Amino acid sequence: MRYAETKPPVLTLTAGPVDAYPEVLRALGTTVLYDYDPAFQAFFEDVARKAQAVLGTDTPPLILQGEPVLGLEAAAASLIAKDDVVLNLASGVYGKGFGYWAARYAKELREIEVPYNEAIDPESVRSFLAENPDVKVVSVCHHDTPSGTINDINAIGGIVADAGALLIVDAVSSFGGIDVSPADCKAAIFVTGPNKCLGCPPSLSLVAVSDAGWEKIEANPDAPFASMLSLKDWRHAWKKTEAFPFTPSVAEINGLNAALDLYLAEGDRAVWARHALTAAVCRAGITGMGLEIWAAREEIASPTTTSVKMPEGIDAAPVLAETRARYGVSLSAGRAETLGKLVRVGHMGPTAQPAYALVAAAALGGALKALGADVDVGAGLAAAQAYWDQAIG
Amino acid sequence: MRYAETKPPVLTLTAGPVDAYPEVLRALGTTVLYDYDPAFQAFFEDVARKAQAVLGTDTPPLILQGEPVLGLEAAAASLIAKDDVVLNLASGVYGKGFGYWAARYAKELREIEVPYNEAIDPESVRSFLAENPDVKVVSVCHHDTPSGTINDINAIGGIVADAGALLIVDAVSSFGGIDVSPADCKAAIFVTGPNKCLGCPPSLSLVAVSDAGWEKIEANPDAPFASMLSLKDWRHAWKKTEAFPFTPSVAEINGLNAALDLYLAEGDRAVWARHALTAAVCRAGITGMGLEIWAAREEIASPTTTSVKMPEGIDAAPVLAETRARYGVSLSAGRAETLGKLVRVGHMGPTAQPAYALVAAAALGGALKALGADVDVGAGLAAAQAYWDQAIG
Amino acid sequence: MRYAETKPPVLTLTAGPVDAYPEVLRALGTTVLYDYDPAFQAFFEDVARKAQAVLGTDTPPLILQGEPVLGLEAAAASLIAKDDVVLNLASGVYGKGFGYWAARYAKELREIEVPYNEAIDPESVRSFLAENPDVKVVSVCHHDTPSGTINDINAIGGIVADAGALLIVDAVSSFGGIDVSPADCKAAIFVTGPNKCLGCPPSLSLVAVSDAGWEKIEANPDAPFASMLSLKDWRHAWKKTEAFPFTPSVAEINGLNAALDLYLAEGDRAVWARHALTAAVCRAGITGMGLEIWAAREEIASPTTTSVKMPEGIDAAPVLAETRARYGVSLSAGRAETLGKLVRVGHMGPTAQPAYALVAAAALGGALKALGADVDVGAGLAAAQAYWDQAIG
Amino acid sequence: MRYAETKPPVLTLTAGPVDAYPEVLRALGTTVLYDYDPAFQAFFEDVARKAQAVLGTDTPPLILQGEPVLGLEAAAASLIAKDDVVLNLASGVYGKGFGYWAARYAKELREIEVPYNEAIDPESVRSFLAENPDVKVVSVCHHDTPSGTINDINAIGGIVADAGALLIVDAVSSFGGIDVSPADCKAAIFVTGPNKCLGCPPSLSLVAVSDAGWEKIEANPDAPFASMLSLKDWRHAWKKTEAFPFTPSVAEINGLNAALDLYLAEGDRAVWARHALTAAVCRAGITGMGLEIWAAREEIASPTTTSVKMPEGIDAAPVLAETRARYGVSLSAGRAETLGKLVRVGHMGPTAQPAYALVAAAALGGALKALGADVDVGAGLAAAQAYWDQAIG
Repeated sequence: MRYAETKPPVLTLTAGPVDAYPEVLRALGTTVLYDYDPAFQAFFEDVARKAQAVLGTDTPPLILQGEPVLGLEAAAASLIAKDDVVLNLASGVYGKGFGYWAARYAKELREIEVPYNEAIDPESVRSFLAENPDVKVVSVCHHDTPSGTINDINAIGGIVADAGALLIVDAVSSFGGIDVSPADCKAAIFVTGPNKCLGCPPSLSLVAVSDAGWEKIEANPDAPFASMLSLKDWRHAWKKTEAFPFTPSVAEINGLNAALDLYLAEGDRAVWARHALTAAVCRAGITGMGLEIWAAREEIASPTTTSVKMPEGIDAAPVLAETRARYGVSLSAGRAETLGKLVRVGHMGPTAQPAYALVAAAALGGALKALGADVDVGAGLAAAQAYWDQAIG
Repeated sequence: MRYAETKPPVLTLTAGPVDAYPEVLRALGTTVLYDYDPAFQAFFEDVARKAQAVLGTDTPPLILQGEPVLGLEAAAASLIAKDDVVLNLASGVYGKGFGYWAARYAKELREIEVPYNEAIDPESVRSFLAENPDVKVVSVCHHDTPSGTINDINAIGGIVADAGALLIVDAVSSFGGIDVSPADCKAAIFVTGPNKCLGCPPSLSLVAVSDAGWEKIEANPDAPFASMLSLKDWRHAWKKTEAFPFTPSVAEINGLNAALDLYLAEGDRAVWARHALTAAVCRAGITGMGLEIWAAREEIASPTTTSVKMPEGIDAAPVLAETRARYGVSLSAGRAETLGKLVRVGHMGPTAQPAYALVAAAALGGALKALGADVDVGAGLAAAQAYWDQAIG
Repeated sequence: MRYAETKPPVLTLTAGPVDAYPEVLRALGTTVLYDYDPAFQAFFEDVARKAQAVLGTDTPPLILQGEPVLGLEAAAASLIAKDDVVLNLASGVYGKGFGYWAARYAKELREIEVPYNEAIDPESVRSFLAENPDVKVVSVCHHDTPSGTINDINAIGGIVADAGALLIVDAVSSFGGIDVSPADCKAAIFVTGPNKCLGCPPSLSLVAVSDAGWEKIEANPDAPFASMLSLKDWRHAWKKTEAFPFTPSVAEINGLNAALDLYLAEGDRAVWARHALTAAVCRAGITGMGLEIWAAREEIASPTTTSVKMPEGIDAAPVLAETRARYGVSLSAGRAETLGKLVRVGHMGPTAQPAYALVAAAALGGALKALGADVDVGAGLAAAQAYWDQAIG
Repeated sequence: MRYAETKPPVLTLTAGPVDAYPEVLRALGTTVLYDYDPAFQAFFEDVARKAQAVLGTDTPPLILQGEPVLGLEAAAASLIAKDDVVLNLASGVYGKGFGYWAARYAKELREIEVPYNEAIDPESVRSFLAENPDVKVVSVCHHDTPSGTINDINAIGGIVADAGALLIVDAVSSFGGIDVSPADCKAAIFVTGPNKCLGCPPSLSLVAVSDAGWEKIEANPDAPFASMLSLKDWRHAWKKTEAFPFTPSVAEINGLNAALDLYLAEGDRAVWARHALTAAVCRAGITGMGLEIWAAREEIASPTTTSVKMPEGIDAAPVLAETRARYGVSLSAGRAETLGKLVRVGHMGPTAQPAYALVAAAALGGALKALGADVDVGAGLAAAQAYWDQAIG
């Protein structure tokens, strides 16, 4: 029995999109209100306030009407002025990619780049900034999803602040699955989205801008306005008394509301613990069957994605085809530089459950074995189960 | 008994967002697939093909991941080159507004503007283009929603084509409710969205680009790419073998699919007839109670929105508050120049039903009467009903 | 433009089923839990407690797993013993119909019957019981839906209690739309359902049994047990520590929970007022166009259904076909003795809104006129609107 | 990390209710139609016709408005006449239980009973009938769910037919998950429900009655009519031209329609294969970790439920509490005679996926180990995975 490509898989355990929480899926079907209806305007403010509580900010984050690449592009376009020197920190494809946007708006882009299974050394940032006092903006990706690796943005944020520069943080696929916040990393702009660890479908960005961030944006004559790329347009839109710059994605706001309720009800620590345990169970399984994680060191591996290095001589593409066809499990490929070299298992939102990590390990191991790799799937599953068991206590 | 602002109204009969079709609302809650899953990629191509069938184009339209202002901004950014002279046709707030975007990208913006209860005279376009042979791009809003008026874009399109210029058409709030298509108006770029007459929630754009349009975009060195504002990025994304530029709004694509199925099943002519009848019933009621429509002439009034002129001395804001508080009916205000001067009743998608036109007329008439206007609501309802009856035959 | 029979109508304004509240429809799709899962058992107890709050009883009502005819049949089977004399009060088809069930279980059935547009005179019950001291059980239908008429069950209940008999009340289509409760009418068994004024789909019964009711049931050797018709089986099933007699309808319980939440949030008085206003607006429209309500007197007409007498020579069947085909509005026929003679407009749950009463009046009037009746539809709509207006104040 | 009892489990892998297919959950929320609306009447007939196709009968089965215990009780009440001798075949708690209903209606109940981990020997039925030629009705449970065992009803059905008796088959928890049909087992009444292998929530019965079955029912003066327990009332109700005996559960009919569509689209053989594979993977895991299945022999173990014998000295209740608390997995206890002695894993509808069997095995093994049992969970998982792998080929 093989699963047909033409039909949905049994389980989507990718690095996102993953399935949304059932409560979110149902909320998407709520009666659509007119955006200027007072009930909707009050509701939107409520949702923004909940997002504020979840992000731990002083004012509500912007809820932009596009998946987080919009938040990231808008951040670059809004914060970076024509005469700015930007330092981009690249430890993976996404971090590197932000540099292209930054370069589009900056006078000059400088970069610290490390191998894509490594993390940025905060001390290298300190040295760089000491030697490059003209850097105005630093950008960093917290969880570089195509690598499954995490940068120490709190340390980096402190260093950037000390240097008087502003930090743009891409926390799209980490926020909500790990202890990270705009305040802790002193971000001028902190971009995330409801579509990863918060368990919504993709289509919105959450963007927290600090006071310093707003000051720079308002001072930037080229910061977009009356545009999809504008942050300024949305600055006060969360207030029920303010007009929307354009029509918000009403259904997605309904979904976001449900997701925020779930997050607040479960409690951030419980959510983080669930992501961490799932990742650990997955890795116990992966390493237990003789595979290696992609990250150079366990401590920089993200709790929201497990990237598994493909064994010598095996490309990821047929492996993914086999996990899906044999086991009905959809996993993620790498991207660009990591494409072909690794397979990614997401642990995000509703999929951050050890039970799914076990299935992911079984499917990935089985596919590799079917393709001739030397893996002991049974040993991996035993190890995953044993890890889970001891973690329960 | 009055309806509280804090609770949803009984009926949303606005110029959009309106409620989505129930089938669309349910489809939004479909299991979210990974965008690179083969089942999703094939599904996306299917949806694009259905959109093609609905739009009557030779290739699938772009499905952009943001409500139609994204499509419009991206159209301006992509098609209009730095050295282009653009003629913008402004018969309302939206048509006028597009000029601001056009001006951002063009060498020079010229404009034909008429009063906002009027329509552009196609012959004035012919004369203008004859006198301004350097115009490369013409832009026009088909249904200027804040006025509820329709321009004759098929006539305009023929004239623009004869002059060798390219036409950008904003058909956001008309397409799907009236007989209009990219081919009939010879549009280089035709922008609409699923969130008006197709009965989806707001969050996607449908953008049809002609061969000539693509030629000009590809030749435009400043046309955005690797950007939310890019049309180029999405040109081939409908193919299941192509990558997405960024993550599509999976839930909204599921909703769009359901909406396109409904449209194709009902049949375009039946959908248009339903919108036309609803508007006519609404207007019979409005005029029957002694009110006037905003449009200078019945024949330029849109079948998808009825704009009602407020009687001398009455501002629209309290009227809207009263229709909602007294009758539970949410209607729309004007915008900018038309704000305060008119109230709009939408007839779009699921709300394009004569039964709702009757309720809208009752609510609007009753609110005006309660505010002291001299209206004979009963006579209006009788007229609406009588019109409906004779239309049934 | 006519509406096809093969497609759903635009509005279902029948005497039930009507559409459920949107919140209820979404709740039906909640993840199905195992009935013995502790989360479900606790949830079921919660729902039962909410039903208790709504019914105002001392203990939770039984939630039977079938639409209210199950509750009624089970009530007859459980309470009425082989040697009981039962007095059935028949003011309509449903009241009369209960007598057939009662007769199945009783030694003898006696009956007070009045014309089906009338109500039972409580004093006639007093006299009857005085003359028939052997009557043990009295049964009455509160709202005889096929007639749209209401009996004064509080007065009747007091008389029955004084006579030392037990009262079975069918409040299926009235409870939740009018001020009625098991306590106020001193019912031994009070049967209703979530599928009328509470705005759920049909499939459950709510049955409140008094202490005296339980005493008689437990003493009845023929009271069903281990049966769908058993009340006894479900007596303690609401407790999370108790087993279910058989599998509850999990999805419907999820829907009921949402409906009870809505009812408690809106507040009983507000819900009743909404039903009453809707009925009054409907009747203003009906009488304003020259038609008559079926009920002999306005004060016995139900606030949850308006029954309209068909004009001389016009059968209801083609009228219903025309309201649906011409206006897309589904209304109800009568049943048995009232079939053909009247048309019913329901005002229940989500349809208890004056806006819908207006549409119902327009559709019914229009259909009658199309069939040749002498109705002034416009005058009716004007009257309905005028009534509504003055009621708002 | 332990899972709270107050919150839903991560996975419900019980012997039912299990979660419904997502398509079914969404369908439950379809706009509720009036049961007498022509669109609903035509829809009901369509659904009945699909149920006919799925069951392979000559006419549509009855769709009764209560979960399958209603179908079973109604079957006993309708078919069994006062002077009938009934042979009940009891190989488990459910088969035994049907005897209580049968005895209620029959002149005399006779029984063949085997240990509850065994199956009925068809030859014993042949002998019994030869010796008891007065037996008119035989009743048998196909899959005795509390034991997870299957009887050979095709063989039994042939023997019963040869003897000229009528067979009542309870195929509630097997139909749709294994190759079984009314025709193949020559059932006079074949009862199943959409709430097990068809993937609906509980609330409806499907009852197929043969011509001989109808003949006997119509000839039975005590067969219920005008009752929830009546089969006769519903005989022709599937026809769009016929009235319903009482209001059908509209939402559940919408869900059933979606489930039947899914079944027909997947194809019966594919569905059965999926159930069989899941069960086999589960058992490979169970036995691989040193546990035993409850069924005396593998060949009588149901493909829709795996019953696992508890090790000496371990009661099932704490095991179930631990699978849920430790792993978030809800499994089923036994019932009555099997209560405490076994744990059941369901493989039904959407849960009939090998991936879930793996999780179930991990959870059950882990819980037992935590409670001190001597199980090698890792070996079990390895065995399950290995079985799955070889089955894929």
